[in-house]
Formats: sequence, C-alpha cells, structure tokens
Amino acid sequence: MSILEKIDDPKELKKLKYGELDILAQEIRDVIIETVSKTGGHLAPSLGTVELTLALHYFYDSPRDKIIWDVGHQTYAHKIITGRRDRFHTLRQFGGVSGFPKRSESPHDIADTGHTSTSISTALGMAQARDFRGSGESIIAVIGDGALTGGLAFEALNHAGHLGTNLTVVLNDNEMSISPNVGALSKYLSRLRVDPTLHKVKDDVEFVLAKLPAIGDKVVRTIERLKDSLKYFMMSGILFEELGFTYLGPIDGHNIQHICETLRSAEQVKGPKLIHVITTKGKGYAPAEEHPDTFHGTGPFVIETGERIKKSTPPTYTKVFSDTLIKLAADNSKIIGITAAMPSGTGLDKFANHYPERFYDVGIAEQHAVTFAAGLALGGMKPVVAIYATFLQRAYDQIVHDICMCNLPVVFAIDRAGIVGDDGETHHGLFDFSYLRGIPNMVVMAPADENELQHMLKTAINHSGPIALRYPRGSGFGVHLDQNLHQIPLGKGRVLRTGQDITILAIGNMVQAAATAATQLTNLGITATVIDARFLKPLDEELILHWVEKTGHVVVVEEHVKSCGFGSAVLELLAEKEIEAKVKLIAIPDVFVKHGKQEILRDKFGLNAENIKDTALQLFRNGAFV
Amino acid sequence: MSILEKIDDPKELKKLKYGELDILAQEIRDVIIETVSKTGGHLAPSLGTVELTLALHYFYDSPRDKIIWDVGHQTYAHKIITGRRDRFHTLRQFGGVSGFPKRSESPHDIADTGHTSTSISTALGMAQARDFRGSGESIIAVIGDGALTGGLAFEALNHAGHLGTNLTVVLNDNEMSISPNVGALSKYLSRLRVDPTLHKVKDDVEFVLAKLPAIGDKVVRTIERLKDSLKYFMMSGILFEELGFTYLGPIDGHNIQHICETLRSAEQVKGPKLIHVITTKGKGYAPAEEHPDTFHGTGPFVIETGERIKKSTPPTYTKVFSDTLIKLAADNSKIIGITAAMPSGTGLDKFANHYPERFYDVGIAEQHAVTFAAGLALGGMKPVVAIYATFLQRAYDQIVHDICMCNLPVVFAIDRAGIVGDDGETHHGLFDFSYLRGIPNMVVMAPADENELQHMLKTAINHSGPIALRYPRGSGFGVHLDQNLHQIPLGKGRVLRTGQDITILAIGNMVQAAATAATQLTNLGITATVIDARFLKPLDEELILHWVEKTGHVVVVEEHVKSCGFGSAVLELLAEKEIEAKVKLIAIPDVFVKHGKQEILRDKFGLNAENIKDTALQLFRNGAFV
Repeated sequence: MSILEKIDDPKELKKLKYGELDILAQEIRDVIIETVSKTGGHLAPSLGTVELTLALHYFYDSPRDKIIWDVGHQTYAHKIITGRRDRFHTLRQFGGVSGFPKRSESPHDIADTGHTSTSISTALGMAQARDFRGSGESIIAVIGDGALTGGLAFEALNHAGHLGTNLTVVLNDNEMSISPNVGALSKYLSRLRVDPTLHKVKDDVEFVLAKLPAIGDKVVRTIERLKDSLKYFMMSGILFEELGFTYLGPIDGHNIQHICETLRSAEQVKGPKLIHVITTKGKGYAPAEEHPDTFHGTGPFVIETGERIKKSTPPTYTKVFSDTLIKLAADNSKIIGITAAMPSGTGLDKFANHYPERFYDVGIAEQHAVTFAAGLALGGMKPVVAIYATFLQRAYDQIVHDICMCNLPVVFAIDRAGIVGDDGETHHGLFDFSYLRGIPNMVVMAPADENELQHMLKTAINHSGPIALRYPRGSGFGVHLDQNLHQIPLGKGRVLRTGQDITILAIGNMVQAAATAATQLTNLGITATVIDARFLKPLDEELILHWVEKTGHVVVVEEHVKSCGFGSAVLELLAEKEIEAKVKLIAIPDVFVKHGKQEILRDKFGLNAENIKDTALQLFRNGAFV
Repeated sequence: MSILEKIDDPKELKKLKYGELDILAQEIRDVIIETVSKTGGHLAPSLGTVELTLALHYFYDSPRDKIIWDVGHQTYAHKIITGRRDRFHTLRQFGGVSGFPKRSESPHDIADTGHTSTSISTALGMAQARDFRGSGESIIAVIGDGALTGGLAFEALNHAGHLGTNLTVVLNDNEMSISPNVGALSKYLSRLRVDPTLHKVKDDVEFVLAKLPAIGDKVVRTIERLKDSLKYFMMSGILFEELGFTYLGPIDGHNIQHICETLRSAEQVKGPKLIHVITTKGKGYAPAEEHPDTFHGTGPFVIETGERIKKSTPPTYTKVFSDTLIKLAADNSKIIGITAAMPSGTGLDKFANHYPERFYDVGIAEQHAVTFAAGLALGGMKPVVAIYATFLQRAYDQIVHDICMCNLPVVFAIDRAGIVGDDGETHHGLFDFSYLRGIPNMVVMAPADENELQHMLKTAINHSGPIALRYPRGSGFGVHLDQNLHQIPLGKGRVLRTGQDITILAIGNMVQAAATAATQLTNLGITATVIDARFLKPLDEELILHWVEKTGHVVVVEEHVKSCGFGSAVLELLAEKEIEAKVKLIAIPDVFVKHGKQEILRDKFGLNAENIKDTALQLFRNGAFV
C-alpha cells in the first residue's frame, strides 16, 4: 500500500516523518503526471509545488489555517491530499474536479481563483477579519514570482506592510510566469537567488568592525550608521524589507524539512513575512523541466517522451492571428506586438522571432500593457495588444481612459473569447462584449472563421482608432485561407444567404452554425436570411434593419452572456429605429459557466445549429408573440 | 505689465532669469487662486506644482519634449503658460477650459487624463516610440506620491527598469494623495524625506574606511562588499534603484533653480531616472496649505478667509450614505468601511471618526480595495467598498473574479454615478450599469432619492451576496429622511402612480423627473404609470411586464449611456418574454461627455421631465411605430 492511499485528509500527514514525505511527494508526482497525460492541465506549475504543498500542510492546520494559492493552477498536489485523490482522474472533465481551487469542492479551497496576483489582498483581508474575531489561525498566501509583477500584488504588499498584521507570503520563485519573467523585479529576484553566500560574510564584517579604532563620537555615530547599512548588506530582501515585510530566504523549495523549519521561524516573527522559496517548474518530470513553458498548460501527452498527443486539426485562431500579424508587419514597420506574459499562448512568440525589437512582453501586467500601448500610439506606432478576453478585464479602465478617450489607434487581439473549455469559470471569455460595447470610439469585430480573422486583422491595423477583434480558443473550421488580405468595410456585415421567412443574425464563431441551421430550415420549408454581423460595434444598421423589416422574425446568436451582448445591441437598434419584429436571443444565461469540453458546454447552452433551427422554427410557427 | 502677460508660449520663459521666474510663479498663483475662488477646482494640487511647472517648461522644450502629468489636476499653471491664460477664467465651465489635460486644447497636453497612476506607462510607451523613430526628445512623467501606490504605476516602474530606456520620472512628493497617504511605500518616502543629512555622512564613512587596518585578502573582499553596501547607506532611494532607476533627490520642489539643475544632472544619466521632488500641497495660499485635503478639489470660496461659498442645499447623497452607514454600524459590528484614498469624498471620514478600527484607507489602489474586501468577506465581515463609479472601473476584474464568482457579501457604494459636472469626461460615472450588469450574482440598485438611499443601504448590508448601489454626485432632492430604516424587497420596484396610456420606467435620480413628466402628461389628457425600478439587476420582471402589457407604450429613462444600460435590460426582458410594446429609451448617447454643470449636461441629453414628457407624447401619439 502506498503512503498516498492513507492520505484522505492533510491531518494524516502529521503522522509521517520527513523521509516518508519525500516518498509521498514522488507518489503524488506520479499521479499528477499519469492524470495530466490523459486529461491535459497545468502540469509544470503543479509539479513544481509538490514539496511546498506537503510542507505547508505538514506544518499548518488546514482548513483552520488558510492557505491561499495565487492563480490556483499549482494546486493539484493540494487537491490530491485534501480528499480528492479518488476523483482526481476526472480533472478538468465536465462534472469532474476543477483545475483550480473551488470552494464548492473542499473547505481547504479558500477562494475560487484563476487570475493572478490576488492572493496577498485576499490573505490580508482574511488576516484582518481574523484579528477582528480574535481567532489565531495562520493566513498564508502562496504567490509566484510572475504574479508578483501584477500591480494588484504590489498594492497588497504596500498595504500589508502598512498594517503590520500577521501574515505569511510564500514567494514561489521559479523564475517563470508562464514564460521566463521580465521586469526589474525579476532581475532583482535573480540577484537574491545567486547570493546565498551573503550570510557567510556577516562574520567577516563584524570582525572588521571590531578592528576599527575608537576615535571619538563622530566615528561612533558613523559606525552606528554603518551597522544600519549592514541591514542591506546582510539581508538581501531589502526591497521587501523596505515595504515592511520580514524577508526570509532564499530556501530550496524541494526540501520539505527546510521549508518547515523556515515556516517555524517565520511564525515566531510578528507582522508580515515573506518567505522566498526557490522551486523548479516541472520538477521531477524531465520533459517539463526542460520545457516549462510548453508544459505550463498542456494537452494530453505520452509520458515516456513528453510528446503531445495531437489530433490533426485545422490551424488555431491563435496561429492564424500570429501568421497574419507577421505578414502585415513585413510591410508596416509601425506594428508593435505586446503580450502580458503570454507570448506562446497569444502566438506572439513567433512574431518575436521575426521582429524581436518590435515585441514587448510586459510581464503579468495587463493594465500597463494597455497604457503602454497608449504611449506607443501617441508616439506614432501601431500597437497590437494580444490578451485573452478574461484577462483583459483587468485593463478595462485603461481601455476606457487611456485608449478610447484619446481615440488612439490601438488594436486589441482578444484571444480565448467565448467558451474556453477545460479551465472553466475563471477563464471563459464571456463578458468582453458587455464591457467593450458601452465605450465610445471603440470598434469591436468578431470573425466568423479563421479566414475572416486574417482580413479583420488587416482592417484593424489600418483603422485610425481603437479596435478590438475577439476570437475563440482552439482550432478554426479548416476553411481556405486567402493569400491576399483585404480590408473589410468598417461596420459592414455580410449576407451569407437570403430567405424571406426569418433572419438569423450571427456573430463570430456562431455564423457557421447559423448557416447550417438555415440549410436545415430549408428542408422544413422555411427560408432564412443569414447575416454574418462581423461588427458588434458599430452595427451594420442598414443591413440589419433591411432584413429584419423584410422577414419580421429574427434569431440573434452569439457565444457571450446574454446581458449586454450582441443580441442586446440589436434590440437597442430596433427600439431606436422603431422597428417591430419578433426577436429571440440565443446566448449564455446569467451564470458562471463551469469547466468542460467546449462542445459539451456549447451544446448545453444551445449554441449549435440544432438549437438555432429549433428556435427559428418555434419563432416562425408561433407567428405573433403571445 | 506683469511678466505673465508676456507668456503666450513656454518658449517665452527661456528669456527669463531665475529671479523673474520666482515673480512669475507668484503671478500665476494669484491667477489660479482668483479663478478657482470663482469656478471651484483642484486648487491645492495646482498651487503645489507652480514652480515645478515653470522649471519643467524652462528646462525642457515642450511640446517637442513630452511632459506627461499624472491625473492632470495639477496642470493649471501648465495651462496658463501654454497659451490658455486668457481663457483660464472659463475653467471647468461648459464650453470653457477643462480642469484636466486635453489634447484638443493644446499640443502641450500629451494625453487626456483624469485617473491616476497612468503617466509612467504612457511615458514609457512614448519613450519606446521615440527610440524607434530615432528622434531624441525627452519624455517626462510627473507623478504624485499618492499615485505611485497604484498598481499600474508599479507595473510601469518594473517594466521601465527592465527596458532601461531614457525616461525621467518626477516624483512630486507632497505626502498626500487627496488625504494623507497610507501604505508602506509612503512610510518609505517619509524616511527619505527626513534623511537629508545622509549625504554629509559620506565623508565620515570614507574616513573610517581609510583607517581600516590592512589584514589580507579576506578583509579586502569584505571591504569591497562594505563599499557596495554604502550604496544603501548613501543613496536612500534604494527601492527605486533596485527597480533599475537612478534616484536623484530629495530636492525642494519650490526652488526653480535647484529643480532645473537636478533636471540637467538627470539628463546626463542614461536610462530611467527618478527625481524625488518635495512640494507643499496648496503652497502659497494659507488656507490651502493648512487644509490641503478640503482644498484638493474645492467649490467657490472667499479668498481672504478660505471660507466656502455655499448655497443652502439639501444634504448630499454622500452625506446620507455616510450617516446611514454610521447608524447601521452601531448595530452590526461586522460592517467595515473601505476607501481608496477618498475618505472625505466618499463620506467615510466620518465613519472613520466613529469606528476607526473598522475603517481602511488602502491608498489609490482600487483593485486591492476590492480583493481585500473579498478576504474580509471570506473571514465573515461585511465590507462596504465606497468608490466613485469611474474609478471602480479599475477594479472590474476583481469584482468579477474575486467577489461575484465566489458570490461574496460585499457592498459597493458607488458614488458619483451619472453626470458629475465640472470634472468632465474622465470623471462622469456613465458606464457602471454596463460593466456590472453582465456579471452573474451581482445585484445593482439605484435610489430614486436620498431617502431611498438609506433603505437601500440597509438592504445591501443584509444581503447575502455582492450588491451595488449607485448614486449621483451632489445634493439630494431634500425629501424627508425616514428615521426608521427598512429593507427593500430584493428585485422589487415600486409604482409611483398609475395610468393607462403609457408606462414610464425610471431608475435612480431620473425617477423624480419621470413623475413630473407624468403630471404634465395628465394635463395633456394622457395618463402614465410611473415605476421606480430600484433594481437594475435583477429587474422586477413581474411589475414591469404587467404595466408594459397594460399600456403597450414604454419610455425608459436613466442617467447612463444607452448601450447596455437599464433600457437595454428592459428590452432584453421584453424579448425574452415575447412581449410586444413600443419602447423608447432616454439615455446618454455613445460619446464621452464633456465638462459643464450637471443641469446643463442633463438638459443637453434630454435627461429632464420636459423631454420625458415629449418623448412619451410622441410615442403615444404616433401610435404604432412606422
């Protein structure tokens, strides 16, 4: 019987010796590798934190003590030892264990997370609440060095240093966010990492100081100051110290005993502590250690080789975006590519290979990515900011205030818009229409397929104001990709087919389902006009009004929440123009959508040809509304 | 003739001597005080930067060199010497000079701003664009110590330190944001400020080091390290140095010559520089120096005494919110008040007086304010986050991800929602419905008047999930304030009057105008039902559907942009329920609204009884839509 089989609750860990914990770590690694090789998932982050997880649960008393994992993609070991071992094989499957912390899964999961840099704020709030209650539990935030570059984390450090409450921040430093980290802070952490000898020097210095001749008050005062300056000399974590934290480290994040001892020391210090733990992303699985970037989040793979198990699929939207941008940049030296720590996810890594001097990875700092783009645009460049729909939420104010108010020509390439699948609630991009549509000067497009994406990107590059194009995660439809790119007339949709009975207005990846539905309707004796809206904003008013008036029945379909989406925009237009019509919206209802394969979730919410057909049929047969 | 009369362009400054610049500073102060005493405005910030402004324009060559003012409320002197002297008396008036930088006003205004912490990002983008172009202009960001606590500023510092491009950040340190600063960074800056003697100690230390006995290699190496540590000893700006900046300062921000000399030194250093300038907020006007908080933004006042010229008006929404929260907190020890550097603006300063231990000013850090509240709520407390509608935009992702996804009981008190008046584009709160409405689990209320605000706040406190109430800037209607607070049924509106011909659906401060319009309609023989919707989300579906079906004609009115607003929500409901009706939306069109008095702007956009009446009349008389 393995050690792991006995661990149904972290309390069981307390019975083990350090040597047994090391064995357990290996058993957990095996389960993680085995599972993720089938389900896909965040392999490298979770392999990097196995020992840290065991140390935290060995030393602390969860769920009384609160361990808050930043982002939460490194929590597989945590999940396995907190009662979810037997269900772990369902990882990221519809109805199965989520890849991120979920309060609904376990009392050991403190907050539902998936975005970065939130853990110190959450922990600080919980620490203050603890102080109000007078209970004495420990509050621990575990945050990566990448996440530390997010402004929110800095705001929280600044506030924590000010409040001085008991709080432990474990800095899980693997020298990576998803890609290698950027930023001055990252360089700073590197210096800390390579300076373990500092502590040894202390004795030498004190020896030297002892030799100083006594020459009066002036020198005494100077020596006092010198001793003060030793604070910098000795404690390399001065940046954190200056912010009010006690810095401990750096320590080896794969040595459970050493981590536990450091945690014990930290708990004896009052106030906020930062423990600097060095881990290796992908630890214990050679392919992941060698390629922590590609194994950050991975699909299924062959364990022996690390080779991905890939079905032959059409190129992804990401790839088409990337290829097209590279092509456009050849003729336009103003084009700049900007990513917030997602070079490979956004496809900008290839752009960076072609145009290294025109590429910026600003780190996990979406706000800065956008305002930095504003500066580049003010300076005459054409920035293309590629950020996933859900993460761009963090730069909403910057889009309003720094881009749209100045009407600056910045292109937003919004990848992973719509249902993203396995990552679930925190990663679906289902709100972008709603937060972008209300902003004056903004243009919002969504391509019907990967070929239209090419032309839209060219259109965006040549537009003189802010413009966004949103496209889904994953493969396109495998349509022919035009070699010559053309501009799409701004705010103009296109008619795919005409019919007299009903109009189906679709946007983005729902256009093809709408066309299929129309074909099915023809078989039932109903002719439908299908419009690829192309633009959420501005709407093609003329085209829409023409066909709505002609058919009187309208189905609007989009992969977005219903509130404030494309359908909502169509309703506003019809009210504005005083057009009477029977309109049905197909969109996602007012819920956070859980994880599961994209197709499963789309079917669940009726985002398919079948439901479009049925909705159209019902609408048409009902004639007038009740 | 004054010196100022000769300054139509900053180029004219170059002809002056330092002594004349000092005289000019006084002349500019007089103009600012004189003007703002009549128009109101950001007096203290602009008085604090007169010498800094002159020094920057004296040393640099604007608009070739780019001076980017963070927030932009400190730019009155800048405006006066960049060709807007003669129009300066129209400050903040409708059609007059804006209180913030506007590219449409002058080529010396680099970006339209009003929110904090953006300047370093913008400057860094412009600096990179400059490097691409190969032009050699200087790029300068002027940022306050308060704004530096915003996460965006940190993200930008981190990136600038990494890129190492030429860039000057002037840290305008007045020890205040709007209120005295909070946070560990602020304490750090204080230490820098009080340590001017550091430089003098340098000689003493070198003397001591020279006396060290020569005792072999080991000590030599140690002394090398000791000398390294002097970096910390000598250069107090180590925190900025660690981030890759060259730190210069602190220097007196009211000594033009000294500033210019430091700028000259800075320009000789390659890479990013941070010049730490100490200024006095309100400098040169005693009442503002004594009360920089109340004179941060002020209404008209008597110059001699600093006394506000106040009309007798009903209590503001802010005051009613404040009083009510204090009352509720007496019976509920879980209530926590949180502000992001706006204690007096939000009315939480009085709450802090009553319950100092339950009040948090987190600094200019809206993101952290919200996620910190998430932590408090997870710990069992009832946080009330009071942030203006426009600034809450910066925490959009935190509202989605940290509050609503976990369905946490956090109350958002959204002040300054709707048209705010004199501050213009950057400060109107016209997007909150649009960014909040799409988020699952969120409840959004808007009180019809200040009495309803009281009851809504009680309702919010007792709600078990995320809930927002948005209310306008300025005075209420002077209605009776109930002493006993009651809860409003969740998602229920109320009927103010009934009529058979038309339904007027109003929300928030538009309800009273709707009622007036209904009275006017009665005189014209048309009877209207008036509904105070109270809830944007969830809508009172039953009530709305009942009256819409009964009357068939609906006017929806709100002080918000039309896209994704209340009217849009009503249209979605009617489509969902297949209700046919003639609906007209009254709301703000798809433009950024400029500055001007609230009444002027409301009239401009038809947000008044007259237009509601006319719209209803037209709708009813037209009968069916065309």
